[in-house]
Order: sequence, then C-alpha cells, then structure tokens
Amino acid sequence: MKSDELKALTLAEAASRISTGDLSPVELTQAVLERIETLNPKTNAFITVTADHAMRQAETAEAAVKKGEALGPLHGIPVSLKDLIDTAEISTTAASLVMADRVPTQDASVWRRLKDAGAILVGKTNLHEFAFGVTNVNPHYGPARNPWDLDRMSGGSSGGSAVSVALGMSLASLGSDTGGSIRIPSALCGTVGLKPTYGRVSVAGVLPLSPTLDHVGPITRTVEDAALMLEVIAGYDPQDPTSVDVPIRRYSKEIDSGVRGVRVGIPRKTFFQRLAPDVESSVETALGVLERLGAEPVEIDLPDTASHEEIFKCIATTEVFDYHEELLNTKSDLYGEDVRQRMLVGRDMLAVDYVRFQRELIALKAKTERVLETVDLIVLPTLPITAPLVEQSFVEWGDESELILSALTRTTRLANLTGLPAISVPCGFSASDLPVGLQIIAPRFDESGLLNAAYAYEQEAGWHHRSPSL
Amino acid sequence: MKSDELKALTLAEAASRISTGDLSPVELTQAVLERIETLNPKTNAFITVTADHAMRQAETAEAAVKKGEALGPLHGIPVSLKDLIDTAEISTTAASLVMADRVPTQDASVWRRLKDAGAILVGKTNLHEFAFGVTNVNPHYGPARNPWDLDRMSGGSSGGSAVSVALGMSLASLGSDTGGSIRIPSALCGTVGLKPTYGRVSVAGVLPLSPTLDHVGPITRTVEDAALMLEVIAGYDPQDPTSVDVPIRRYSKEIDSGVRGVRVGIPRKTFFQRLAPDVESSVETALGVLERLGAEPVEIDLPDTASHEEIFKCIATTEVFDYHEELLNTKSDLYGEDVRQRMLVGRDMLAVDYVRFQRELIALKAKTERVLETVDLIVLPTLPITAPLVEQSFVEWGDESELILSALTRTTRLANLTGLPAISVPCGFSASDLPVGLQIIAPRFDESGLLNAAYAYEQEAGWHHRSPSL
Repeated sequence: MKSDELKALTLAEAASRISTGDLSPVELTQAVLERIETLNPKTNAFITVTADHAMRQAETAEAAVKKGEALGPLHGIPVSLKDLIDTAEISTTAASLVMADRVPTQDASVWRRLKDAGAILVGKTNLHEFAFGVTNVNPHYGPARNPWDLDRMSGGSSGGSAVSVALGMSLASLGSDTGGSIRIPSALCGTVGLKPTYGRVSVAGVLPLSPTLDHVGPITRTVEDAALMLEVIAGYDPQDPTSVDVPIRRYSKEIDSGVRGVRVGIPRKTFFQRLAPDVESSVETALGVLERLGAEPVEIDLPDTASHEEIFKCIATTEVFDYHEELLNTKSDLYGEDVRQRMLVGRDMLAVDYVRFQRELIALKAKTERVLETVDLIVLPTLPITAPLVEQSFVEWGDESELILSALTRTTRLANLTGLPAISVPCGFSASDLPVGLQIIAPRFDESGLLNAAYAYEQEAGWHHRSPSL
Repeated sequence: MKSDELKALTLAEAASRISTGDLSPVELTQAVLERIETLNPKTNAFITVTADHAMRQAETAEAAVKKGEALGPLHGIPVSLKDLIDTAEISTTAASLVMADRVPTQDASVWRRLKDAGAILVGKTNLHEFAFGVTNVNPHYGPARNPWDLDRMSGGSSGGSAVSVALGMSLASLGSDTGGSIRIPSALCGTVGLKPTYGRVSVAGVLPLSPTLDHVGPITRTVEDAALMLEVIAGYDPQDPTSVDVPIRRYSKEIDSGVRGVRVGIPRKTFFQRLAPDVESSVETALGVLERLGAEPVEIDLPDTASHEEIFKCIATTEVFDYHEELLNTKSDLYGEDVRQRMLVGRDMLAVDYVRFQRELIALKAKTERVLETVDLIVLPTLPITAPLVEQSFVEWGDESELILSALTRTTRLANLTGLPAISVPCGFSASDLPVGLQIIAPRFDESGLLNAAYAYEQEAGWHHRSPSL
C-alpha cells in the first residue's frame, strides 16, 4: 500500500474493505508501521511503537476474516492511543520520566472496547507531559511536530494522536481533553477531534488530570470515522464513577440527515474576538456553507470567557496537584520545569475558592444550557490561531501579547467546564497552508446532532480530502 | 383539649379525627398555642410563634371541613418549622442576630408542600445558631431546653423542633441534618427523627450549612407520623440542584410488614464503643426486641469513625465558610463566639484537602453500600450518651474526656457522609429518666424498609406512649 493511498484511506473505508476481504489487515498494519518507521523520527508522534504486538494482532485478524468469523466494527483497524491510556503489558508513560518504566497490568475500559471491536494497537502517542499543557513541546520525548510544517507545534495535549492520524501512522486515535486537548491538536493538524459529553465515554484506566473536567474521545480523519469510534467507546462503565447511564446511538448511521432548519448559535461577542485573519475568514466561510445547507444562523450571547480561565485554573490545578502531590515530593526532578511549576500552584489553592468555583461551574452550565434551549448548536472557531512555531511562547495582537497557553485554550475550555459535547472539523487553510478548525458544540448527550452537523459541513466543504505532503 | 390528651395525640390520629369532623382544627390549634404560651418561656423551643397566622389558617381549615371540601393529608395539623426554613412574610432568623430582621419573600419547597397538604404553621423553632453546632445552647435566643429535664440540653441543631414535638407544642416539625441535627435532638428528647436519603427531600429555600451534607426531614412523636410527613415532603424538586428524581412511595401505608427475616447489621466494633451504660443496655434490649420479632442479627464491619470527623470537618467547615465569608467580614460581632470561631477555620482549608476528602467521601459511600449488600439495615445507638447539662462541655469516659460536640456526632455523621437514610426511634430511658435513641440506617432511597423496621420495633417496644411530665 502506497503512502498516498494510506493517507486517503478512512477508517470507514478500511473497515468495509477488510470485512469483504478486499483489504488485508496484515498488509494494512505493515503499511502503517512503515509510515511510523519513516515519519516518527521526524515528528515524535509516538513514544512507544508496538510493532510486534500489532503484527500478531493483525495476523489473528486476518485469520478470522479468512475463517469467515463474525467481525467487530473495527476489525483489523490500526489505531494509536495517547500514552496516558492504560494498556496491559504495554508501557504507559504519560510522556513523563516519572512514569517512564510504568507498565499497567490492566487495560483502560476504552482500549478494551476498541480491542473487543477488533482494533489493532500500533503504538502509544506523545503528549504534553501528564497532559498538563497544550503545546506538546515535551522535554523528554521531543516535541510532537506539526504534520503540515515540522517547525510548528502539533498542539496538545493529545498532539501525537493527531499527528499519527494526519500522516497515516494510524487510522484513528484516542485522546483526552481537559481544557481542549483533543480539539486543539485536531485544529492545528487538520484532523477531526471529538470531545463527547462528560460521562459519555469512560475514563477508567486513563491517567487523570482533573477529574471534574477530564474527557476521552476520538481523533480521526473524517466525521464518519469519529462516529464509528464513538459508537464503540461510548456507554456506561461501572468502573468509572463519573460515567452516566444514558442510551448510546448508532452514530455512524445517523450522520447524514443534513442541517436544514437547524438553528446555529454564533457567539460573536465572546468567541469571535482576537482571531487571526486567516482563521476568521475560514470560519466565516464555513458559516456561509452551513447557511447554504439550510442552517439558520442566530446571534447568541454566552458568558464572558474571562471567568472560564479563573474557574479552570483553580479546579484543574487543585485536582492535578491532588494526584501528583506525593510524586512531586519524591520525584520532583523528573518533572519538566513548566509542568512542575504549574502543578505546584495547586498546593496553595484555598478550599473555599475551589467550592466557589465549583458553584460558578454549575451556574455556567445552567447559563449555557439555557442558551442551548434557543438554538440547536453553537458554532465558533476551535482556536483563534493556526499552529505556532515550536519555540513560540506568545502570539501578538497589535500591541498586545497573549500567552500561547491562553490563545490555545480560550475558545475550547467552555465545553470542558460545561461538559457539553464538542467537535473540531477542518474548515480551511491559512495562506501558509496551516489548517484551521471549526468547532461545534451541542446539547448534553446530543452527539448525534453534533456529528450530523459536522458531517454535513465536511461533505460540502471537502477539506478532508487534503493531506499533508509528508 | 387537655395537655395530657394533646401530648398523647399523634399526627395520624389528629388527621383522621379532623377528616371525620371529630376534631376541630381551631380547637386543636388553640390548644397547641396554649401549650406554647405556657411552655415556651421554660424551654425556648420557639423563636417566633405565629399565633395569628395559625388561627387564620385553622379557621380556613375548619371551614373547609364543614363545607365538605377535599382535604389534604395534613389538613388542620399544627406543625412547627426549624427557623432556617424559609416562610414567606414570616421571619426566618437561623437563630442568629445576623439574620434577626430577615423576612423571606418565598416559601421553602418543603413548607409549600406541607401547606398544600393542609398543615398549619404555629411557629419557627430554635436551633443551634446557623445550625452549626449540636448543643442548641444559643447565646441569642436562649438554650432550647430538654423536655425531660430543663437543666439539660435538647441537642441540636434542630433542638427547638424536637422540644416542640415532645411537649405537644406542635404535632410534627421539620428539621435539617448535616451531621446529625435531626437525630441528635430526637434521641435526647425522645422523639422520632428521620433523615431521608440525600436528594430525597428538597433543600430549596432552606438556609444551607454544607450543601454536600445537608438534608431536611421530619421530627415526630411516632414512626407512622414520620412516614406521613415524609410522603408529603419527599419528591423531585427542580428548584434544588441536589434533588434526585426517584419515585416516592406511600410510606405510611407500607410500615407494618414486620421484620421477619430482615438481616440487621450490627457494627459493634465501630459504633458500640464508649457508650454510657444506660445507653448500651437500652440498645442491647432493643436488639433483642428486633430479634424476637424475627430479624436476623449479623455482625458487620464498618470503616473506622476517626476518618469521618476529618472528612466532615474539612468539607463542612469549608462550605460553611463559603456561605458566610462576606457576613463574617461585615457582621462578625453579631455571630456567637463559638460559631464564629469554628466558621473561621474554613478560611484556611486547602483546596487539595477538600478534593481529597471528597474522594474519601466517595470511597466511604462505596464501602458502606457494599456492607448494605450483605444486610438489609444497620442498627446502632443514635448517640453514645443521654442529654448533657446545658453548661456541660465534656463527657468523661474513665480517665478520658470527650468533647460534647464529638460525643454527639460520632455515631450520627456516617449517614450524612454517605447520604444514606437514617432514623432515630426512642428505645428506653436512663436511670435518671432521660430518653435513649435507637438508630437505623437503610440502603439509598429505601425509606420504606427503614420506616418498616422502625415501626415494628416501636409498636413492640411501646416507648412512644411515654411523655414528659411538663
């Protein structure tokens, strides 16, 4: 299989061809592993490549096809997992030296579900250390580099997952998203990133960052592929106390009903400020596409984002410190400097502030859900900028500087704070050929509506046909 | 109506006699108001007596009976409410000078439900200031005194409610319970106190103490009366974000199926330590009664109570301070000294400890619920002691002293931390004629099982026939 063919191959197409015997899981896995061998040294997408394990799985998968056995929906599909998702007998480092030697004995629930559906693990992807950051510039395993420009960052924290998918080093990946970590690298790398509703997908066996805000979800090349992944990983899990028992749907079968009459809320005042001109024009064009498809644009007001940063900082930093306190005491020098410093801030947070921000979180949810009673979806830029350079720390807005950390989270955090499902879909390219992402947010547990709108847009716009040249 | 008759009259009997026209709501209310006039100066049970309001309600109630209108289940029943439950146009002080002039504009959901069922409000009862304490020794409104011995405390924080019920100054009352505040005064005053499952009864319009642990429930003279009150106040309330939408039952119709074959868990190691001899013998006798009725005693292990105090202290104190911070800044001198000092502890609590104790809370719930998979109920003393003297601060165990605050909460807090339903039923008297309470805890939302066992015990033991001599 040639690399151009692999880059164009969707999970949906591969699964269909495998099930008919037209595509060999062994050949597919080999081709993917070859891509990894060629491109991983340039991109740092993977921390661990599980080539032998993948080939054994592929051979078993191939034998099952030949024997005519019943096949799962992901039978023979090479996937990657962010390296904070536990895999039994396979190293899971969280991209940290603190856990460099860690080999879990049990699978995370989401990996068990993928495996049961027939997926093949080709490797564990790079991330911002412990998922606590959004650049994916990792001091221990190298920066996960942008597939469209290797001098630029992939974004984090699930950067390696997005890079692996964008370059055909896996057909799909799972990431985690606490402040935007699935959608940020998806926007910067031109992939589709889906953060499901809080409680929809189990986080059991996934290293926690901030349990109040943590989500797990797929990164794929197309919306249909995201739907296919979601229907495998979604659903109640008694192992996860935050899991919610809400019926799941056959998402991939429900994505093509169009957006005619769908009321699309556009929060211009809060989320269309300080946008790079290329981002702004791509997003405005995308809004035009949705309108052409019959969607009804509605201007909406959402609460100011300034409070989001405060709420996020207190809750996330406290919960991160809670998890890491003992390790920070005993293995402080193994942490990267940026991550350690930001984690230590959690030590001094006051309980009364934590309680107050938890109350503000409830109020923010209620306000946002009230807006979602007047519209069906909210559409906004996934990010205000395209991929920064690896060494970049600030973005300039005229005379004003903004931290990259802030620029890469101010449009994504709302969906974590509210727990609402959100997706990033490619919606164009900057003048220097860097991808731009369109973000859609839907009501609680309405992943169907979310995927449906994203699919309608994607099919009309066609950006998913474009791949990086690597 | 004579006072002896009134002290013996249950809510169930009164409601039945009112519905047949045999008892006049006006006469009943007058008799209750006369009791209040005589006994409130001695007991400090009430902060506000709503005599005029009650008489108007009673006359309307009487007219409805005469007209043959459809009557609610509490038609014409004089009740009292702890003075932190909001009553529109009627002063609600939380027994604090900080709120001495506060007159709510809206009713708490529970009072609206009682009113809709026909109940008549005779007054607002005394409590430990802001419900943050268990002695009910109130520096502003006087100590709510024990009906069996006026030199002794009624216990808190819902002391006034228990006193009013024990002495016929109301036929039933509502209290709140964050660490035991319904069950503690019930045990010390010889009433029945029911703390329902967390989420079962709305707390909307009830002044919060610690929202993670707050509950509202009835204080009555009999178990049947508690069931009658519960079926009126229970049920989902969209005004209360902690309210849970679980079907309620006709509790009062389901209380007499006995305890034959019911597995009664007895946590001897954790909850039968450091008991006053009179308490111990009363509780052991009560266990014998349950066994005679066919219940099957099972020795069970529950997690050590030492952790309860730590968890409670951090979570409750933080949440109390969260609510009171601004008032403590502006009206510090209006707070009673003990309450102010304990509230200020919440200022310095660390967020990471709060998060940790919330995790321990989840673990404690899981452990206790696992025990409740092996037994149907847990039975233990409501309290290790009988009513202390008003001025008493310590209780002596041989060479060891224990703070009254600790002695009065170490057996009650578990039900707050786990959210499990719990009831206190009179189970005898000490040599000096002070009541002892038996506590029963049931699985989540199994108020039926709880009331059923309490009723079976009560009917067999007959302690509810005994009233204070006042």
